[in-house]
Amino acid sequence: MITSPHNPRVKGVVRLRKRRHRDDTGTFIVEGRREATRAVAAGVDIATLFLQTGEIPPAGIDADIVDVSPAVFAKMSARQGPDGVLAVARTWDLGLDRIKTTTGALVLVAAGIEKPGNLGAMLRTADAAGVDAVVLADPVCDPFGPNVVRASQGSLFSVPLGAGSAAEVLAWLDRADLEVFTTSPTAETAYWEHDYSEGAAFVIGPEDVGLSGLWFESGTPVRIPMAGEADSLNASVAAGIVLFEAVAARSR
Amino acid sequence: MITSPHNPRVKGVVRLRKRRHRDDTGTFIVEGRREATRAVAAGVDIATLFLQTGEIPPAGIDADIVDVSPAVFAKMSARQGPDGVLAVARTWDLGLDRIKTTTGALVLVAAGIEKPGNLGAMLRTADAAGVDAVVLADPVCDPFGPNVVRASQGSLFSVPLGAGSAAEVLAWLDRADLEVFTTSPTAETAYWEHDYSEGAAFVIGPEDVGLSGLWFESGTPVRIPMAGEADSLNASVAAGIVLFEAVAARSR
Repeated sequence: MITSPHNPRVKGVVRLRKRRHRDDTGTFIVEGRREATRAVAAGVDIATLFLQTGEIPPAGIDADIVDVSPAVFAKMSARQGPDGVLAVARTWDLGLDRIKTTTGALVLVAAGIEKPGNLGAMLRTADAAGVDAVVLADPVCDPFGPNVVRASQGSLFSVPLGAGSAAEVLAWLDRADLEVFTTSPTAETAYWEHDYSEGAAFVIGPEDVGLSGLWFESGTPVRIPMAGEADSLNASVAAGIVLFEAVAARSR
Repeated sequence: MITSPHNPRVKGVVRLRKRRHRDDTGTFIVEGRREATRAVAAGVDIATLFLQTGEIPPAGIDADIVDVSPAVFAKMSARQGPDGVLAVARTWDLGLDRIKTTTGALVLVAAGIEKPGNLGAMLRTADAAGVDAVVLADPVCDPFGPNVVRASQGSLFSVPLGAGSAAEVLAWLDRADLEVFTTSPTAETAYWEHDYSEGAAFVIGPEDVGLSGLWFESGTPVRIPMAGEADSLNASVAAGIVLFEAVAARSR
């Protein structure tokens, strides 16, 4: 059992809050019993499971298990209400070639999203809509960051996820033969004027600055018509509106 | 100019982070230039405007203006990146009798929402959908709390807002002659199987525990069909999906 907060393994976990250390080690933090359980169920490779004294491991976990004192766990935890379970998991390859789609697939392209909480919420929403994949184009924030893990509520582990530059993603969408719809507040047609029953890839950009020009050369612009004083919809809300329109179109 | 963090007016602002002090004084905090500007534009009554030295007041503001030193502003601010503008505004009456609806109105009922960030995001989403009103049923969190103000991005000021017990809200909905749809993961029919072109009131409950039984005795249950591993959709995403279905139905 580790009882010293100065233990090198404890310091190693704390360092994983920084992207550079995640990139260097190919590992990331999955904090929380529910999150660790979902990671295991989704087949994520767990390197080490840290348990606060007295906690039992989530079912089915195959990992090096390390007991730690409450003080040590408190140092490793980045949560407001820690539950005594924290896994260090191995990241995986996000290469687009690994993402297979079929005819009529539904895909969410998250383009240039900056806020980890927004990216996590988009993953959760896309998961609920039953997408075939989420693709990160020109990713700004690291999908393996702790705030993405938390906001995705485990969907990070279960949704097929790829990443690449905008040009790479466009080439992949072309090979997958998917019609691309770019959401934009200045598009002439409303999103409900199109038929998505044959599948679609929806491109959602950051709330403040919107999408870069490359997307508009390659996709059909669609607008979510907005009333009121708010500048824009939250990116995960916008994703939910267009993705569920496609879900409804397939069902109708 | 106030230069002492111990000044009673400074302490009074800090106390407004607590609900009890907001209730006692009938005032609340609107921090940020953008937020204060939106409050003024929406006709919110500003009691005092605190400006960090060198900041100019938002246009059109009619309030007691107090300059404060950077150290004093830092004490009053609850933000990560303060911009030197903080207003103390007067709350207003949320009585349901003040909320007028017309035939075919679109209303969001936020029932028992606990997280201020979720309530703020629901207000922002409802505003973008152009609802006639947002009604809080059995409100748990204070709509005048600082995290609601922030997450709503100013929609708190512009959306007609009422509040009451579930029974009071149901009586109001009945008088308004609005058809009530209660979102539930166990409902038999999907939300897209109904026609909302004649108006609707959508009831959304907290993500974890869902809606209380009273709602199901009085409304038509509808389901947002969910795939994947995530337990549920975020409340503001669920609100966006059903509200924009009604917006689309009116337009189609």
